[in-house]
Amino acid sequence: MNSTILSRSLLLAAAGTILGLAIHAEEGMWTFDNPPLKQLKDKYNFTPTQAWLDHVRLSSVRLNDGGSGSFVSPRGLLLTNHHVARGQLQKNSTAEHDYLKTGFYAATPDQEMKSPDLEVNVLESMENVTDRVQAALKNAKTAEAEFAARKSAIAAIERESQQKTGLRSDVVTLYEGGEYWLYRYKKYTDVRLVFAPEQQIAFFGGDPDNFTYPRYDLDMALFRVYENGKPIDSKDYLKWNPKGAEANDLVFVAGHPGSTERDDTMAQLTQERDLAEPNTLKILKDRIRVLQEFSARGAEQAREAESRIFSLANSRKAYEGRLQGLEDPAVFSKKQKEESDFKAKVMANAQWKTAYGNAWSEIETAGKKSASRYKEEYYHGLDSSLASTAVTIVEYVAEIKKPDGERLPGFHDSQLDSLKFQLASTAPTYKDMEIARMTGALKLDLAEAGPNDPFVKTVLNGQTPEQAATALVNGTKLEQAAERKKLIDGGEAALAASTDPMIVLARKLDPMRRELIKWTEQNVDSVEQKAGEQLGKARFAVYGKSTYPDATFTLRLSYGQVRGYPMNGTEAPPKTTMFGLYDRANSFNFEGPFDLPSRYKEEHGNLDLSTPMNFVTTNDIIGGNSGSPVINRNAEIVGLIFDGNIESLVGDFVYDGDKNRAVAVHTAAMTEALTKLYGAQRLVDELLGK
Amino acid sequence: MNSTILSRSLLLAAAGTILGLAIHAEEGMWTFDNPPLKQLKDKYNFTPTQAWLDHVRLSSVRLNDGGSGSFVSPRGLLLTNHHVARGQLQKNSTAEHDYLKTGFYAATPDQEMKSPDLEVNVLESMENVTDRVQAALKNAKTAEAEFAARKSAIAAIERESQQKTGLRSDVVTLYEGGEYWLYRYKKYTDVRLVFAPEQQIAFFGGDPDNFTYPRYDLDMALFRVYENGKPIDSKDYLKWNPKGAEANDLVFVAGHPGSTERDDTMAQLTQERDLAEPNTLKILKDRIRVLQEFSARGAEQAREAESRIFSLANSRKAYEGRLQGLEDPAVFSKKQKEESDFKAKVMANAQWKTAYGNAWSEIETAGKKSASRYKEEYYHGLDSSLASTAVTIVEYVAEIKKPDGERLPGFHDSQLDSLKFQLASTAPTYKDMEIARMTGALKLDLAEAGPNDPFVKTVLNGQTPEQAATALVNGTKLEQAAERKKLIDGGEAALAASTDPMIVLARKLDPMRRELIKWTEQNVDSVEQKAGEQLGKARFAVYGKSTYPDATFTLRLSYGQVRGYPMNGTEAPPKTTMFGLYDRANSFNFEGPFDLPSRYKEEHGNLDLSTPMNFVTTNDIIGGNSGSPVINRNAEIVGLIFDGNIESLVGDFVYDGDKNRAVAVHTAAMTEALTKLYGAQRLVDELLGK
Repeated sequence: MNSTILSRSLLLAAAGTILGLAIHAEEGMWTFDNPPLKQLKDKYNFTPTQAWLDHVRLSSVRLNDGGSGSFVSPRGLLLTNHHVARGQLQKNSTAEHDYLKTGFYAATPDQEMKSPDLEVNVLESMENVTDRVQAALKNAKTAEAEFAARKSAIAAIERESQQKTGLRSDVVTLYEGGEYWLYRYKKYTDVRLVFAPEQQIAFFGGDPDNFTYPRYDLDMALFRVYENGKPIDSKDYLKWNPKGAEANDLVFVAGHPGSTERDDTMAQLTQERDLAEPNTLKILKDRIRVLQEFSARGAEQAREAESRIFSLANSRKAYEGRLQGLEDPAVFSKKQKEESDFKAKVMANAQWKTAYGNAWSEIETAGKKSASRYKEEYYHGLDSSLASTAVTIVEYVAEIKKPDGERLPGFHDSQLDSLKFQLASTAPTYKDMEIARMTGALKLDLAEAGPNDPFVKTVLNGQTPEQAATALVNGTKLEQAAERKKLIDGGEAALAASTDPMIVLARKLDPMRRELIKWTEQNVDSVEQKAGEQLGKARFAVYGKSTYPDATFTLRLSYGQVRGYPMNGTEAPPKTTMFGLYDRANSFNFEGPFDLPSRYKEEHGNLDLSTPMNFVTTNDIIGGNSGSPVINRNAEIVGLIFDGNIESLVGDFVYDGDKNRAVAVHTAAMTEALTKLYGAQRLVDELLGK
Repeated sequence: MNSTILSRSLLLAAAGTILGLAIHAEEGMWTFDNPPLKQLKDKYNFTPTQAWLDHVRLSSVRLNDGGSGSFVSPRGLLLTNHHVARGQLQKNSTAEHDYLKTGFYAATPDQEMKSPDLEVNVLESMENVTDRVQAALKNAKTAEAEFAARKSAIAAIERESQQKTGLRSDVVTLYEGGEYWLYRYKKYTDVRLVFAPEQQIAFFGGDPDNFTYPRYDLDMALFRVYENGKPIDSKDYLKWNPKGAEANDLVFVAGHPGSTERDDTMAQLTQERDLAEPNTLKILKDRIRVLQEFSARGAEQAREAESRIFSLANSRKAYEGRLQGLEDPAVFSKKQKEESDFKAKVMANAQWKTAYGNAWSEIETAGKKSASRYKEEYYHGLDSSLASTAVTIVEYVAEIKKPDGERLPGFHDSQLDSLKFQLASTAPTYKDMEIARMTGALKLDLAEAGPNDPFVKTVLNGQTPEQAATALVNGTKLEQAAERKKLIDGGEAALAASTDPMIVLARKLDPMRRELIKWTEQNVDSVEQKAGEQLGKARFAVYGKSTYPDATFTLRLSYGQVRGYPMNGTEAPPKTTMFGLYDRANSFNFEGPFDLPSRYKEEHGNLDLSTPMNFVTTNDIIGGNSGSPVINRNAEIVGLIFDGNIESLVGDFVYDGDKNRAVAVHTAAMTEALTKLYGAQRLVDELLGK
């Protein structure tokens, strides 16, 4: 989906508030400073030590491609999902070597393959900076002044920390502003692919089986993290338990859930249901249609588009599930009851009423304002990586001249290294696909925003969408890393002199974008942040800190049990086995997404088919948790999160312990396949510490 | 469930009317006189010949245990479900030989085992007798007079036919009285068990998987029909096709769907939803609870109760599905629209309006009257086979003295042979279980109908439910076939002299039962039959005979395709394989209903696990179709119906082609298991015509 939507959805998430009443058993994505010790003690008689918590945190990683992972050997071996690695596999593939099709295995260390633009972050430390941020707001008289002061304070904390420690430093807003934390990350950018199976087995069952269970996927990939040309010494890593998880085991998931809206107000949820989700779905469906038409042109086009279609189809199914959840009257009435109870408690206390009582209506008003410009929000999309690059370069050159605290999000000093790493990517660009995508996006913009919309007029400039896209994409040289570097290094003068059509377009669009961002900050963001912070404080006042904050793509710990659930009139089992993989493939006569790579057909006699393949747990996870390790009490790795079941898609808004399940690859299946199908004994030995 | 409820539910079905608008593709349980030739021609370019239809009809059988079956060899070999045979297996079992547990295989012909009370019927001929029945009603002035005249005419037709042909002769009411047909059956009562697998594999997955799919059940049994001590010469039989059905194949099901209420009026459906289904469910749940408590007493008790719990749990799940369907607003509004359209068409024609226009309100009024005595209908249950026998004997002796046409249902001349066959059953009676069941039923009656209810007062006679049940069951000798024969042969004098406490009770209850039956005939049945007949005629007038009648446990033909369906967010496959059986067993660690018989664990290396196990088709079926053959265009047997999916449970009221599926055992799995696991080569040779 385009970045506008993503940032909008993050905005909504960040502006919500805290409703949680009693936490369900096993609900929660807990920060590592506030683990659910009482619940673990009461229900499982387990108390993780600080050493256990630190070890798990330092073994867990975040990937800039949007997923999670963990170290699984002392030599920097990193486990994540195939679908998290897919982008890198795709970028390293060519028409001759399609690693999505064939998989990849570095039989020797020197064959380990550099990733074009993968960055790995390890959360080294966490520091509560709430007082410092809130102190900075003291003298602000208006929401807008607060907004600027907050932004400036946060940028200062980040910059200061980065300069002092050399670590990536992010201030994270938790509890909608009830708390601010400084998270410092150790960053790695030399990440090499070691092993990935064929996409056909990683994503067995394809889009139909996606977000469902029972499943039979080997959705795994192994990277190795290097520094200075050598594997790192990852002393914190999770020991591999080849027996894996058993039914009813207590298990933990350490990972980076992307965003949830569980603390949104009813006004926000209503707008989400009626405006944000339907428009996002409309865009996703259109983007997919465009790419499917592009794919139909030939095998090479299909290869180029595959990874992107996969990711969009994944989003579409997730959004359909979310929307279905929002449209479920039971979900809405549960949320309504929570809000009513919370509000009643606030209003019953004179002091709280004065301090926090207006927050709900302020958020509602801001939401309505935001909705008044929704066409610009949703239908000013270009769906082109080249156009995004041009926009980023134009913004970059302008932003870095400003004081850190006044820059647009993404351009703070502490973020520049990662940004430059992305802009230097050597990943290939497929210009025909860029044209197809941009044409499709412009057609949709034209249909929805209309021909007189200033953005549409500027981009089309009297041409058809296809003409405009073709001229822009064919005319630009931004696919070359050297061109991008020249412009960045050349600064304002180079930019102004550039005749690259994408840069010319980005320059024209820049004032429009800035006006919308500014207007949104003044009318929406600043109000929502202020009111959100009030509700965050109200939540602490009413309920104490007995709960967890909404997800923010930062490290969280969830706990749960390996457990089946009622499904389709019967019981979904706690685990599946390799027998089931062959059942499902044969059931569909090996057609389409139910085909198997040839080694699975030819060598299945070698396998112990009773080996557990996938399993489900009650852990509370969400998108971004992909690639997270599933660990047992001893912090041994017993599985690998790769999905949630269809019943968990409503998890953005509410957790249902009866049916919400995380879906994981079992370590036994990974061990069995690596050993018997891929001959990857060197990796198995490394995993087993031999 | 008790017989009162069954008969009530059949009454409701028989009193409905015909609503069907456009028939969905593949919808319909068609009579053999009116097969869906046009649909088959249009969609599949297939036209069955009359010879094809006759052959299929004469190869199909109805079993008095409530299921269907078919001849599969020229020597009387009969295929049905294990769950249809279960009652007979149970009756032949003892604490030493539990055939439900071990299965049964007659390795030689002389080991084939007689069934205590299984009767098999083959539909020899069908004759339209509508004119004769309707002519008999001509001079009747009131609904009640019509009722008596209809009953008398039907009994006369049946008696006359039986006397003339010696065949079992039933007049069947179709299209709610739009048509009457005389069905003549060749009857067999020497039916011997040849093969049944272990219940654990026949019903693999147990109650959880019941009515669901994907499934992995070998729900089959083979009997052989004898006459005069020798296997019959079954020249009409279905050739065994060991390759079985493939995805997308056109397939037919010939069997005996029990009852549907698709032509009920909205008033009837509403009463069904609000009164009949909830009370039936309440009773079913209570009966199951009672038997589970009985089972918990010990292994032998568990064995005795198993078959009955199975059957009750099956009903409970079916009723839950039906009720869920009725409570689905989409189903109700679809039915409402159908009725409104039909009614509008009738009312728009002056002649139709006069003739049929009052039928809906008459049915509604009759329904309300019936509801006024629902406690007697539902909560005068004794749940005892000994009590049922006593009631039947008391009624029998009184009824056979009357003219045939005036007797209670079940006591007509044409039905007496089958009745006597049942009363002569040598099946064992478990008195402890009888006491437990009767105690439970009386407790429920007491709670629901109250202590002052005349039935409750009569049965309890000042005792507690447990005391009353214990005295009645321990005091009676009706478990002995000789005792029953003595009373039947002794007639009124023997009955009057009997001090058997069950007979004494049945004598006391007899007037109450008769009063209720009479009252219901006068106030409900007669009105509903008359109005139903009007609506049946109206249906023909408005829509012609383009549709099929509601199910009546008579032979029907349905057609459809082997096809998966959308399920749980993904696709259910058209078939499953033996791989899946081992997946599901291993997924649950072989626990409970997911265990496997030892031969399946020890000898699975012999099996080709890619053998298709179960499959789904779009055929329109319902309870009673259990054991029906699935056949291809060549009338070869390719599968064996044993269930419907959970989405089909609403099929009592409406057919949904998108998700409604019949579930069948694949012939390949039956062949594979008989050959490789059971060493039943003699049967495989017979099936393959070797």
